[in-house]
Amino acid sequence: MKKYKNGEIWEFEQQMGSGGRQVILGLDGGTTSTVCICMPVLPFSQPLPDPLPVLARSVAGCSNHNSIGESAARETLEQVMADALSNSGSNRSNVGAVCLAVSGVNHPTDQQRILNWLRDIFPSHVRLYVQNDAVAALASGTMGKLHGCVLIAGTGTIAYGFTEDGREARAAGAGPILGDWGSGYGIAAQALTAVVRAYDGRGPETMLTSSILQTLELSAPDELIGWTYLEPSWARIAALVPVVVSCAEAGDQVANNILLDSVQELALSVKAVVQRLGLGGEDGKNSFPLVMVGGVLEANRRWDIGKEVINCISKAYPGTLPIRPKVEPAVGAALLAWNFLTNETQNEVGTKR
Amino acid sequence: MKKYKNGEIWEFEQQMGSGGRQVILGLDGGTTSTVCICMPVLPFSQPLPDPLPVLARSVAGCSNHNSIGESAARETLEQVMADALSNSGSNRSNVGAVCLAVSGVNHPTDQQRILNWLRDIFPSHVRLYVQNDAVAALASGTMGKLHGCVLIAGTGTIAYGFTEDGREARAAGAGPILGDWGSGYGIAAQALTAVVRAYDGRGPETMLTSSILQTLELSAPDELIGWTYLEPSWARIAALVPVVVSCAEAGDQVANNILLDSVQELALSVKAVVQRLGLGGEDGKNSFPLVMVGGVLEANRRWDIGKEVINCISKAYPGTLPIRPKVEPAVGAALLAWNFLTNETQNEVGTKR
Repeated sequence: MKKYKNGEIWEFEQQMGSGGRQVILGLDGGTTSTVCICMPVLPFSQPLPDPLPVLARSVAGCSNHNSIGESAARETLEQVMADALSNSGSNRSNVGAVCLAVSGVNHPTDQQRILNWLRDIFPSHVRLYVQNDAVAALASGTMGKLHGCVLIAGTGTIAYGFTEDGREARAAGAGPILGDWGSGYGIAAQALTAVVRAYDGRGPETMLTSSILQTLELSAPDELIGWTYLEPSWARIAALVPVVVSCAEAGDQVANNILLDSVQELALSVKAVVQRLGLGGEDGKNSFPLVMVGGVLEANRRWDIGKEVINCISKAYPGTLPIRPKVEPAVGAALLAWNFLTNETQNEVGTKR
Repeated sequence: MKKYKNGEIWEFEQQMGSGGRQVILGLDGGTTSTVCICMPVLPFSQPLPDPLPVLARSVAGCSNHNSIGESAARETLEQVMADALSNSGSNRSNVGAVCLAVSGVNHPTDQQRILNWLRDIFPSHVRLYVQNDAVAALASGTMGKLHGCVLIAGTGTIAYGFTEDGREARAAGAGPILGDWGSGYGIAAQALTAVVRAYDGRGPETMLTSSILQTLELSAPDELIGWTYLEPSWARIAALVPVVVSCAEAGDQVANNILLDSVQELALSVKAVVQRLGLGGEDGKNSFPLVMVGGVLEANRRWDIGKEVINCISKAYPGTLPIRPKVEPAVGAALLAWNFLTNETQNEVGTKR
């Protein structure tokens, strides 16, 4: 194992004996927070225990390299892994596999860059996997199996899918500048825009004006400009989604149209992925899991965005099987690491025979 | 005159004698650059000389307090004014009036805050005016008269208008998050989005894909995400407008639709201002100046966005008189300062009689 420069992060290992059981690490790194789960390596041949045996869970802040830069993201990820190992009484030699599922992995070069520095941290026997965080979310609904499609709609949105033979496709997830209009940020930015347009005469009056100004404790729409650019945080804007839903529920047509557009956009992302992968089969009627994750889809109110999205997708693909995951994405990442390890080990056994 | 803490900016004044002719300062401060013009005070009763007598012109970088913060913006503005005075052989006691027209003045509190620190710099006899930079652009087309409407469409967009009796109104200018879709940034962001949507199956194929990738020297659409978030600069994205225009001219339907939408958005901003101020009179047929400013409107190509915007506005308001200014907005700001000074002086004379 290479001596890594941030050696102090791993000082706890010096107080530990050698030996101990083999563990896996699953990591879900997003723009808001980062979670790491440490689980024992489960027997390959048996069904998954319920509940899953989680040895430790650690939490840190943002680990999206697009938001905070490469080295800060890297330090956050390394620290959260060290915390999970330390809390579970394990060290790096006990690790069988790591699955790092982080937002901002949009291109093979992103994946390779992260793999390179991850390689420096762990002993050479450790299997390392780097994925977009959407893949962990999918696995959290399918208990580690990469098949079907996941739709995430929180501050941002992305649809990501896999066929059983390992082909993959994604849609959206390109961030707020590149038109993720169905996202929480997209919904809220359109609501703020509608307020400005009503104020300057470009658009119809809307209940969003009084509701949003009251929520933000502002006295006039022209103060929205200062508020919006005060802090460059997409999440701060996305936090206005419940106000938009309330206005739509109260009958405001502008708010209602924004939510209807959002439903169309979210459904379109899923349909694009399902179409490209042929998940619905030749007649579009094959069944496949659709994992639904994120605040926008979990609202569970009278105006239920998630339910409307499912209705819209089911019209095109009646075999859609919606799943609301019972475990968090970091557990999905750990299950992925376990699945990858299982497959590789079985292949190796097969090769040796 | 108060001793201002940045005294070194004004050290040049110690080498100058007292006396000298009275001058005015006009300042146009934007996100890209800041220009200050020093002109002599012109006789009130005569028509404006052509060309205008400009004593000095100085240039600096960004002075938008939303972009670079209050104190950096303030220092830029103070330095550029000192440079213009120094170059014209004048000092602060020679100044009759200053018009500071800066972007980011969206609310009376912005105006008051700037006036307060401007008051600290100049002797008490100097008349001070703070305006949104759109007002200087209007004045650059009307030679200092505040009447009619200005449409600016560069990286951002805003429409701003005045009636002859001093009422004012604006539309758009709320920045990229709050839906300035007709702007250069808006056009380019929609083009980038169209490329992502074509790539992931959510939208139709478009020539924008190859044209934009070639311009940015990227090899695949998924690299656009990294490119977009590499630098938080709206201007960098807006620089892609000519690529969109070329694709539309070559017959690409996606690019064409983006430009048509932009024309509608820009025309809507102007119509909202004209409507609220009643510039077209009761039957909508009164004539009023429409000053057109900014890279998006000055393209002068086969697909001429500015011409299409004028056509669209003229259908609703046949008295629209389009003006392409011959002088820069900083000169407009200086003419404004001169006009304000003229009006106040004439009112004072009137009162004394």
